[in-house]
Amino acid sequence: MSRRLHFNLFLHDTGHHEASWRLPGSDPYANLSLAAHQHLARVAEDAKFDSVFLADSPVLWSDPGRRPAGKLEPTLLLAALAVSTSRIGLIATASTSYNEPYNLARRFASLDHLSGGRAGWNIVTTAGDAAARNFGLADQPLHRARYERADEFLDVSTKLWDSWADDATIADKQAGVHALRDRVHEIGHEGDFFRVEGALNVPRSPQAYPLLVQAGSSEDGKDFAARWAEAVFTAQPTLAESQAFYADLKRRVAAAGRDPGHVVILPGIVPVIGATEAEARELDAELDRLIAPRYAIGTLAHTLRVDPSVLHLDEPLPDDLPGEDEIEGAKSRRTLIVDWARRENLTVRQLIGKLGGGRGHRTFTGTPVQVADTIQHYFDNGAADGFNIMPAVLPSGIEAFATEVVPILQERGLFRTEYEGSTLREHYGLPRPANRFALQGVAR
Amino acid sequence: MSRRLHFNLFLHDTGHHEASWRLPGSDPYANLSLAAHQHLARVAEDAKFDSVFLADSPVLWSDPGRRPAGKLEPTLLLAALAVSTSRIGLIATASTSYNEPYNLARRFASLDHLSGGRAGWNIVTTAGDAAARNFGLADQPLHRARYERADEFLDVSTKLWDSWADDATIADKQAGVHALRDRVHEIGHEGDFFRVEGALNVPRSPQAYPLLVQAGSSEDGKDFAARWAEAVFTAQPTLAESQAFYADLKRRVAAAGRDPGHVVILPGIVPVIGATEAEARELDAELDRLIAPRYAIGTLAHTLRVDPSVLHLDEPLPDDLPGEDEIEGAKSRRTLIVDWARRENLTVRQLIGKLGGGRGHRTFTGTPVQVADTIQHYFDNGAADGFNIMPAVLPSGIEAFATEVVPILQERGLFRTEYEGSTLREHYGLPRPANRFALQGVAR
Repeated sequence: MSRRLHFNLFLHDTGHHEASWRLPGSDPYANLSLAAHQHLARVAEDAKFDSVFLADSPVLWSDPGRRPAGKLEPTLLLAALAVSTSRIGLIATASTSYNEPYNLARRFASLDHLSGGRAGWNIVTTAGDAAARNFGLADQPLHRARYERADEFLDVSTKLWDSWADDATIADKQAGVHALRDRVHEIGHEGDFFRVEGALNVPRSPQAYPLLVQAGSSEDGKDFAARWAEAVFTAQPTLAESQAFYADLKRRVAAAGRDPGHVVILPGIVPVIGATEAEARELDAELDRLIAPRYAIGTLAHTLRVDPSVLHLDEPLPDDLPGEDEIEGAKSRRTLIVDWARRENLTVRQLIGKLGGGRGHRTFTGTPVQVADTIQHYFDNGAADGFNIMPAVLPSGIEAFATEVVPILQERGLFRTEYEGSTLREHYGLPRPANRFALQGVAR
Repeated sequence: MSRRLHFNLFLHDTGHHEASWRLPGSDPYANLSLAAHQHLARVAEDAKFDSVFLADSPVLWSDPGRRPAGKLEPTLLLAALAVSTSRIGLIATASTSYNEPYNLARRFASLDHLSGGRAGWNIVTTAGDAAARNFGLADQPLHRARYERADEFLDVSTKLWDSWADDATIADKQAGVHALRDRVHEIGHEGDFFRVEGALNVPRSPQAYPLLVQAGSSEDGKDFAARWAEAVFTAQPTLAESQAFYADLKRRVAAAGRDPGHVVILPGIVPVIGATEAEARELDAELDRLIAPRYAIGTLAHTLRVDPSVLHLDEPLPDDLPGEDEIEGAKSRRTLIVDWARRENLTVRQLIGKLGGGRGHRTFTGTPVQVADTIQHYFDNGAADGFNIMPAVLPSGIEAFATEVVPILQERGLFRTEYEGSTLREHYGLPRPANRFALQGVAR
């Protein structure tokens, strides 16, 4: 079979453009609406997308005055969507810094059982002091320490997911034996961050582990991805940068001793689709006009770790910004923004317009054929295995992509016309993890 | 309106009798089956039950050799059931000892939004060293310390649920203002166990707080219930003990400055229903014969904190058992079992038979009219506001109760024939919590 594209829909209530809730047709309460999320997931499933995905942080992560700031907890929302869908994968973000591995490993194993093997975990270490202050800390742990904890968190979690052999449960009613005790293992983990005895209280799930997803693009983040991730979300503003990221990450995966074909790289794109190219560009501009610059400057100043007063709307960014090394969190996002502004000689106002739409992700603006062409060009030229679709406005943006762009790619033989597997890993063409205890012969 | 009964269905895969999975008609994989839980919840909803409920502990809490030991995480399973039902309340157990308040408060607020105001939280402090060893501890925290942490956990959680005023969100598209910032409050909690800045990242939910449920029957447990609980599950083997518990708890509630009418007391009962009394008794005996005593002795010895070798099947319990004061966890369950065995002069074998069915809860055995009569007798004589229904075998036990017992109680005007409210608190006739910040005028 020839190589095929993969698509993930990044769910984000009324859309990824921060002013999308203000459009006349938008439901400004969509962030808390089960029905709104059910609709988005069903549109993506009808279009045969691999998965839907929810970002998250355990903190009020945007200004509630400016846009819908409340978010339903992703593992619960996806458990509900598991009932409303039957084939599409369900990827929830959860933090390794502010959870306990026993609890989180169990939630993902439960989601995988509930969905029949459709669970995915976007692993984040959670940047920011504000989140730390919801968990008894004055400041966030250092970037490096967060990744060390994340590594051990994954070690514990995968041990817990292996703690039941696949054939542990025999349910022998006559003998009164439900599971074979010697196929259910304590894990006895003792590490720097965690001591966990196990076994997990959920038997091994259809996928064994949730699909492991990662999106950090710092050096630590990429090395972590090389060790653990099976799918990688990334923000890359140009084709050349996508190609460089793609080659670099596949190299790191090989260096970590893994098969580069077992990691799927999915750059984020904001498709803006019009019947004509001009119509698409007008749609894009209309959204940017809705952003109130006085609010947006605060967000930009926070990302760059400068005082808002040094940013002037109709001037370029100041020269003396804090470097990536001085920032503890979201390091790569800061560098991406600064490089972008300097490369394109953007004023602060212009930069805000671009960030409001894609937040650093690439916007593909044009007719359905133009958008499909760009997708194919990336796919054919070592820049992507598929895409994380981030429509500026929802649900209209995904409806347009599903009905206008997907059929073109299906006609070209680049995207499935029907689901072929039943689990999320099967959609992405990835193997089911083996059980370490079975491999070591401990189980027998 | 006259006083009405309340019913909760205690979900437990193939039933509360520990041998129920071995019956010919039982699905031994029901513990991991969404469909099995959907069926149970729908039967209870068709019968107009107030709620369904899932017990839980973050540990492999029964011997996987002996009965289905894996359990789906309750908040996720109930999020899925929220989609499959529309009126019935959804109560999940979660531990205050092994969660962080920000994460758990958020999950319950999310469940309340997803279900349209049907969430409940059975608050447990989690007894047992085995659970502690999944969270970096060598032994469980002391009983008293667990309750102190639980108190502060509730203090933090209720502050977080109050952190958004009900009218905070205005969604003014024209002005570009989504929520009023001065109606979204940091909580700035600094206590012995937790420091939490807030606000919660979920706006105030339909019920404001999940229904707060509690089941501890130790002195600490009852005092905690008096301060916080709105519904109380309890195991009481006789009418007299139910009456004493009921009067004692209502007194404690009043002493804590709360309205005793705002706490609903629900003893657990195991209904065993036959067309004749003899048929019901035969059903009961058939189940007990399925228990393998060699396994059950281990469980009993663990509960009583003695070596299994001191227990002999055809003799009474030994005289020199550890007292309640020497036990750190499940104190009241131990005392209930010992008192029961001594009161009825039970051998260990007889005791195991009774515990296998009801685990200390009262079995109501008889025809539908006899079971309805007993329920009414408890309800009319100061022993219960309703019942936590724990069928020995599921789904047959709840199907029989729903179709044979509930109509009798409806005919007598003791139980609703249609839901009258939409939230779980409305089903139980309880008021929606006021917002502390609004009351203090901080929000204005």
